[in-house]
Amino acid sequence: MMSTPEGVGIPDVERDTTGEKLAAVRTLGAGAPVLAFDVGGTDIKSALFDVNGTALGLRRTPTPTAEGDRTAVIIERLGVLATELRAAHPDVVPQAVGLVVPGIVDADAGIGVFASNLGWHDSPLRDLASARLGLPVAFDHDVRAASWAEHRLGGARDYADAVVLVIGTGIAGAVLVGGKPYTAGGYAGEIGHSPIADGPECACGARGCLEAVASAGALARRYREATGVTPDGAKDVIARAAAGDQAAADIWSSALDALTLSLAQLTAVLAPQAVVIGGGLSRAGGALFDELRARLEARLSFHRLPVLVPAELSGNAGLIGAALRARELT
Amino acid sequence: MMSTPEGVGIPDVERDTTGEKLAAVRTLGAGAPVLAFDVGGTDIKSALFDVNGTALGLRRTPTPTAEGDRTAVIIERLGVLATELRAAHPDVVPQAVGLVVPGIVDADAGIGVFASNLGWHDSPLRDLASARLGLPVAFDHDVRAASWAEHRLGGARDYADAVVLVIGTGIAGAVLVGGKPYTAGGYAGEIGHSPIADGPECACGARGCLEAVASAGALARRYREATGVTPDGAKDVIARAAAGDQAAADIWSSALDALTLSLAQLTAVLAPQAVVIGGGLSRAGGALFDELRARLEARLSFHRLPVLVPAELSGNAGLIGAALRARELT
Repeated sequence: MMSTPEGVGIPDVERDTTGEKLAAVRTLGAGAPVLAFDVGGTDIKSALFDVNGTALGLRRTPTPTAEGDRTAVIIERLGVLATELRAAHPDVVPQAVGLVVPGIVDADAGIGVFASNLGWHDSPLRDLASARLGLPVAFDHDVRAASWAEHRLGGARDYADAVVLVIGTGIAGAVLVGGKPYTAGGYAGEIGHSPIADGPECACGARGCLEAVASAGALARRYREATGVTPDGAKDVIARAAAGDQAAADIWSSALDALTLSLAQLTAVLAPQAVVIGGGLSRAGGALFDELRARLEARLSFHRLPVLVPAELSGNAGLIGAALRARELT
Repeated sequence: MMSTPEGVGIPDVERDTTGEKLAAVRTLGAGAPVLAFDVGGTDIKSALFDVNGTALGLRRTPTPTAEGDRTAVIIERLGVLATELRAAHPDVVPQAVGLVVPGIVDADAGIGVFASNLGWHDSPLRDLASARLGLPVAFDHDVRAASWAEHRLGGARDYADAVVLVIGTGIAGAVLVGGKPYTAGGYAGEIGHSPIADGPECACGARGCLEAVASAGALARRYREATGVTPDGAKDVIARAAAGDQAAADIWSSALDALTLSLAQLTAVLAPQAVVIGGGLSRAGGALFDELRARLEARLSFHRLPVLVPAELSGNAGLIGAALRARELT
């Protein structure tokens, strides 16, 4: 729940024994060198961005585990990663750090309010990271940082009022209003945990959340529950639907209806100019985007329909957002 | 559709032959004298606000009718009303005018984009009113102006992030973000026309809109359709539900569920600090507010629940909002 959705079984990078090196990301443009960390429940993405905004040493390493609150082991790991990056690139002297995490995040206060898969409650992550790293730290929510990156450099850059949806294992979202992230103390953007039906039960404790019906994770789970067959991720369910598998078709259609209802609500209330969709499910391409456009148009009347566009920064939007946030401190 | 919901059969003012004099409204506080007009499909509310912010000559008169676009007859009527107000209060010289209208409104451009019950499409109301009245005109959407008034002087004054819902014949809404109305070119806040179910058909052309299920108008219509009995407005349906009428109870409960689902969506996505509810249905008091609070809490989990508060400016919030907008020009 509430974590950044990860991919759905479509690896876009190579793994090696020292963590996973990641493909080059879009550059930030010129500015101060900064360190950036995108901490998830499974992996930490890290990189050092130079004066050109090029990511150096970009890789993914496992998030260290611990009983309960993982704050201490993660902060320590950030210190090790930072030392390694600085040793490998001695000419690039970072001026600040960007750190983004999942869950409920109070960015202004620098606090990780809650993250079920990282075990913390009201953890003062910004100050702890700053003390360990000896640099000012910009702290933010992973998907809001990703949406900021999409706004500055990616699919949302033409739109001041936009919603970014990341559909993977879960569904996370962020709202941009007037070109700025709208946070509401960290509680805004929980589109994955907005109810759209009476069921099923969601891991968050509520029922009928969009994430429980329409995430990539839900598609795979629902197909397994319906047929007893474990599919190879959501993309397999969608492929089976296209090939005439009725159970797969029903599940995929109901997921599209749920996403449509959620987008219709967003359109009526916020009327964003664009909805930027990333995460593993967005790789379904036309099977997702064309269907959503057609169903949304059929569902509404006088409303101003948003443009539906794919996210452009792939799995690195959070890290790039962290780097952008760090640059704002310099 | 999309118009300011009016009362639901609970008159709070006396009618007379020259239009309806209205009860005194909250004062604006000190500032320039301004004229204010709140134009609806049925009535125009008008007043002259003096340097103390006291409303003079406040009354409600019928909106003139015409075939098709009512722009011309309304502009002319505003001229007559202004002349009468100025003649009655020669010492109060207005410096600006506030004009608010229903429908889709592009406040920045001064244009009434669309209002089904006033017949206009892309009507340059601000400039026409300014030419007729010889004063600068502040132009806005009626419910957004009302929400602004509630934020400045009423139930939303303690909350920078709030949603204002006006539940009457229809359901209209407005979103305040960071203490400012969020407009999205006039398309935001259409909470009444956000879909929450597969039916019934809504007057707007979509289906399952909140307004078609849960407005005061819908409650009365649905009871009539279910029983063949025409109730005395929504308050009568609610009273029958409380008295054990099963049809009334079912309709009222389903309306509360629909409102709850819509509030749950708002809470997940926007996490407003408060939802301010006005309009005729808000006079149901605890039958509405206590039920909504309990159902919303049961429907969500980790989310930050908004405070649910009644609007305080009654039916005059739109007019007060118009006056506040006019003051901003002086």
